[in-house]
Amino acid sequence: MTQSVDQKASAAASAANAWLSAFQEALTARDADAAAALFASESYWRDIVSFTWNITTVEGGAGVAELLRATLDDVDPVGFRTTEEPVEKDGVITAWIAFETKVGRGSGLLRLVDGKAFTLLTTLDELKGHEEPVNGRRPNGVRHGAFRDRVTWTESRAREATELGYTEQPEVLIIGGGQGGIALGARLRQLGVPTIIVERNERPGDSWRKRYKSLALHDPVWYDHMPYIPFPASWPVFSPKDKIGDWLEMYTKVMELNYWGSTTCKSAVREGDRWAVVVDRAGAETTLRPRQLVLALGASGLPVVPEIPGHEKFRGDQHHSSAHPGPDKYKGKKAVVIGSNNSAHDICAALWEAGADVTMVQRSSTHIVRSDSLMDLGLSDLYSERALAAGVTTFKADTIFASLPFRILHTLQTPVYNAIRERDAEFYRRLEQAGFELDFGEDDSGLFLKYLRRGSGYYIDVGASELVANGDVKLAKGQVVELTEDEVVLGDGTRLPADLVVYATGYGSMNQLAAGIIGQDMADKVGKVWGLGSGTTKDPGPWEGELRNLWKPTAQEGLWFHGGNLALSRYYSLYLALQLKARMEGIPTPVYKPAEVYHTE
Amino acid sequence: MTQSVDQKASAAASAANAWLSAFQEALTARDADAAAALFASESYWRDIVSFTWNITTVEGGAGVAELLRATLDDVDPVGFRTTEEPVEKDGVITAWIAFETKVGRGSGLLRLVDGKAFTLLTTLDELKGHEEPVNGRRPNGVRHGAFRDRVTWTESRAREATELGYTEQPEVLIIGGGQGGIALGARLRQLGVPTIIVERNERPGDSWRKRYKSLALHDPVWYDHMPYIPFPASWPVFSPKDKIGDWLEMYTKVMELNYWGSTTCKSAVREGDRWAVVVDRAGAETTLRPRQLVLALGASGLPVVPEIPGHEKFRGDQHHSSAHPGPDKYKGKKAVVIGSNNSAHDICAALWEAGADVTMVQRSSTHIVRSDSLMDLGLSDLYSERALAAGVTTFKADTIFASLPFRILHTLQTPVYNAIRERDAEFYRRLEQAGFELDFGEDDSGLFLKYLRRGSGYYIDVGASELVANGDVKLAKGQVVELTEDEVVLGDGTRLPADLVVYATGYGSMNQLAAGIIGQDMADKVGKVWGLGSGTTKDPGPWEGELRNLWKPTAQEGLWFHGGNLALSRYYSLYLALQLKARMEGIPTPVYKPAEVYHTE
Repeated sequence: MTQSVDQKASAAASAANAWLSAFQEALTARDADAAAALFASESYWRDIVSFTWNITTVEGGAGVAELLRATLDDVDPVGFRTTEEPVEKDGVITAWIAFETKVGRGSGLLRLVDGKAFTLLTTLDELKGHEEPVNGRRPNGVRHGAFRDRVTWTESRAREATELGYTEQPEVLIIGGGQGGIALGARLRQLGVPTIIVERNERPGDSWRKRYKSLALHDPVWYDHMPYIPFPASWPVFSPKDKIGDWLEMYTKVMELNYWGSTTCKSAVREGDRWAVVVDRAGAETTLRPRQLVLALGASGLPVVPEIPGHEKFRGDQHHSSAHPGPDKYKGKKAVVIGSNNSAHDICAALWEAGADVTMVQRSSTHIVRSDSLMDLGLSDLYSERALAAGVTTFKADTIFASLPFRILHTLQTPVYNAIRERDAEFYRRLEQAGFELDFGEDDSGLFLKYLRRGSGYYIDVGASELVANGDVKLAKGQVVELTEDEVVLGDGTRLPADLVVYATGYGSMNQLAAGIIGQDMADKVGKVWGLGSGTTKDPGPWEGELRNLWKPTAQEGLWFHGGNLALSRYYSLYLALQLKARMEGIPTPVYKPAEVYHTE
Repeated sequence: MTQSVDQKASAAASAANAWLSAFQEALTARDADAAAALFASESYWRDIVSFTWNITTVEGGAGVAELLRATLDDVDPVGFRTTEEPVEKDGVITAWIAFETKVGRGSGLLRLVDGKAFTLLTTLDELKGHEEPVNGRRPNGVRHGAFRDRVTWTESRAREATELGYTEQPEVLIIGGGQGGIALGARLRQLGVPTIIVERNERPGDSWRKRYKSLALHDPVWYDHMPYIPFPASWPVFSPKDKIGDWLEMYTKVMELNYWGSTTCKSAVREGDRWAVVVDRAGAETTLRPRQLVLALGASGLPVVPEIPGHEKFRGDQHHSSAHPGPDKYKGKKAVVIGSNNSAHDICAALWEAGADVTMVQRSSTHIVRSDSLMDLGLSDLYSERALAAGVTTFKADTIFASLPFRILHTLQTPVYNAIRERDAEFYRRLEQAGFELDFGEDDSGLFLKYLRRGSGYYIDVGASELVANGDVKLAKGQVVELTEDEVVLGDGTRLPADLVVYATGYGSMNQLAAGIIGQDMADKVGKVWGLGSGTTKDPGPWEGELRNLWKPTAQEGLWFHGGNLALSRYYSLYLALQLKARMEGIPTPVYKPAEVYHTE
């Protein structure tokens, strides 16, 4: 029997409301088993800070019951309800929900199959009594009336700039002022948490500006918004690097962040319930004593250059991709680019465009996906003009994405990449014919899982692959075993004449980068950062269920990691900021099941 | 008989659709009289660029018929329709409408009373084939593929900065880089019109930054958005001057405007179909040859300081309000502030707050309205969180405001100010008791009409009035006739001891300011700028129906004036930009009834 749209909607609403009532009833009765019984045998509850003061996914009824037994009394969740009309599609009922806890307001997304929860996402959105001063709560800006010795906004900002970090200590110190540090800094400013961001570059945005000149974001604009000030409707789909640099600089200014450029962090030592962080600010050494230390160092902080025998003999230019100045001086020269991921491809293409003779050295298989295919098949349901027109706001898109359990994400992604492989079959055939070694991830799940698991091993094709396919960029394969005065020598004896060698050989791990600041012992204590424990290359098991150490408590009290692309930084910065704010305000934050540390790296 | 909400809605829709059908039919038949017969005997059609390539209000059937006879064949309007459900309230049916012309797409607002049009607003929103590259049309940012000698965004911007104004001439030159020039510059950039903005201050926003330190916007945030990038939800209600300065600077950068700071305009002479504009850019003289010249000089460009006998003898500090550095060095000093409008009040309050002994000299009656009353009763239906929650977006609010005919605006405003006088009766009584001479405009129509008619004569009270009422700021009245070494002498013989004299005596007219650039003859030719011809003080008749010379063709081909507060700059910059774009593209722009020039000033 066919139901009308209205009947289906009403059935979906009834089912969702019935489930939420039963769930609320079980929670109120502190009956963890009754609540757990509402979940399907295969089911996933992901909580972001609202129940667990952690970012945690539990699985099945047993996982749910265990979580609830540990948290219910502290959390006292009430008011579970839908916030808009639930919808049903292909047997799955999806409901946007809201609820309250003892200390805050939360929301989330529920998916029901056959009346039971298949996935549940719950997030803490704000702390009661500490709501952000936005919209109807925005500040007046100026205090009306007449008051002796009024302090203007400018004076107050100037005073803060002079005093914070010197006569007053920040609650939070963020090391790293890229998009991650800036997004988090903006959230903390809104929450009234005194924060300093330190950044080794001079100006916000320099971490983009200083890279190779042809760089543009590989993710489209809809995916890249910062919190509070979305890009305007006129913003290009793929931001050129200097344009995103300018945006970040202006953002930092108008969001009133305390941003210390030209500042390097020498060391951070735990002293009591604070940190002693020695920084060099434009030549002057200062010790900052924040209560919370956030490392937002990025995935590109520590260039890795292989030690190749003979490199000291090489007479041409050689540098890591992060130091590549751009192609202008290499017209007519022979360039060898070692590596075959994003930077390698971009640099090869730019060198070719400038008239260099270019060879790419592929050392291992690489995942390639064409930008337009990724946009059309991978992203556009959530991040596109079409999605916006369908009511999928950036926040909804982020939430939908966050609601997909990492455990089964690959099963959702593989069909997307199968479709992409079909759509671009001819493209992939030509690349392989040119000798390029392709992969789609070990389980064919494609780009995003490669990103989450290891953060490397791919290129989003914006044009370079055609040059590889047609031979304009020459392809060599294997390991580099030696440099001579004017050649790159590969393991099979191939000798590549070279005036320029670019090491597009990637970056060290976030943990290594952290070790340089907090010391190796503490870095070992908190362990690996990033990756899920999928048991695939560069992401050793056991399965950990969430990204390691990101945006949540670590094994070191007061130490946090923040990072990810613009989208992840945007979304998770809220939840990290709320955790930091709660600690500043002395709100109890019992962490449910702190993650085990399995790997130091 | 009571109608249900649905019945009323449906009746409103029927009436609006019937009217639009009849109107469209008459237009298609080129039957101006039939169209005119659809208007009430008292009725107003305001057209912004869509029919008239002008900003014009015509009145009654005769006005409508005359306009249509002159324009119909050129405009060929089609597709008049409602764009959302019309609503009826108190016998007035309001309908949001859209239509197309031969060259563009338009929209507007229609009000029907008893089946006939009482007001109609029509605006041109975009030119066909020249739509702004926003949302689905936004640029890619980077050209995917591989191309020899690719030019990056940075290189292209750098090239433009080097060449425009030197080896290439701009289509449009905007003189004045305050909010008006910047908003227009942003529109023109989106429309692909090569434009330079020149500004005597060093940086965008300096025209705010350089004013007295306690200055904050007197209009609330909802009224103040710039085009394309609205203020974030965290923005304060009343922007401190330096904060709005930072925003404008950020905006200028990220909207990619060609902004020449530290540039003064020496002269502008018409040569053929271009201008020869001599500018001094940071010490280097250059001649720019734009086709279109826009004066966006602001209302505060030309400080007026009365020539007071003895002023050269005065031993204390004396300066115009625009040069007032702030109160910090006047603690314990005697300050006399001449004037009783916005700046005078703000400066008096800041001096009092800093501990000065302050006297305000009121020379003529002043309109005072308390900020919160103005917000609650004057603005909040259109510009507030409440309005936004009710679906009144900034664009809708602007359009509603633009749809109210200037001819009857005072009749709509007087009741608002009557309500304010009642609400704040005690406040006004105390002010009068303190000797302050109040007015509410000559027809009691209040602030906004004073602003439109003369741009002066009021203070939006944010606290200073209490100081006047309670005597903390002393009040003196009358004209200043002399300065001695240490006194200000009034006409009635009062002698005010003074260490500081601030001339809060206002600014010269926009026409005077223009004369300094285009010469007195051309300034006389185009005549007075601003004001409606209301026949009230400083706004001599005859009635002209629209603001003189603003945002529309002037008596001098290629010369335009742009200005107004942030809200007017935001709204009208679109229509001025479309006029300039049409001329650049060679689209015919026959101007209906260019305004007569009645006054030179």
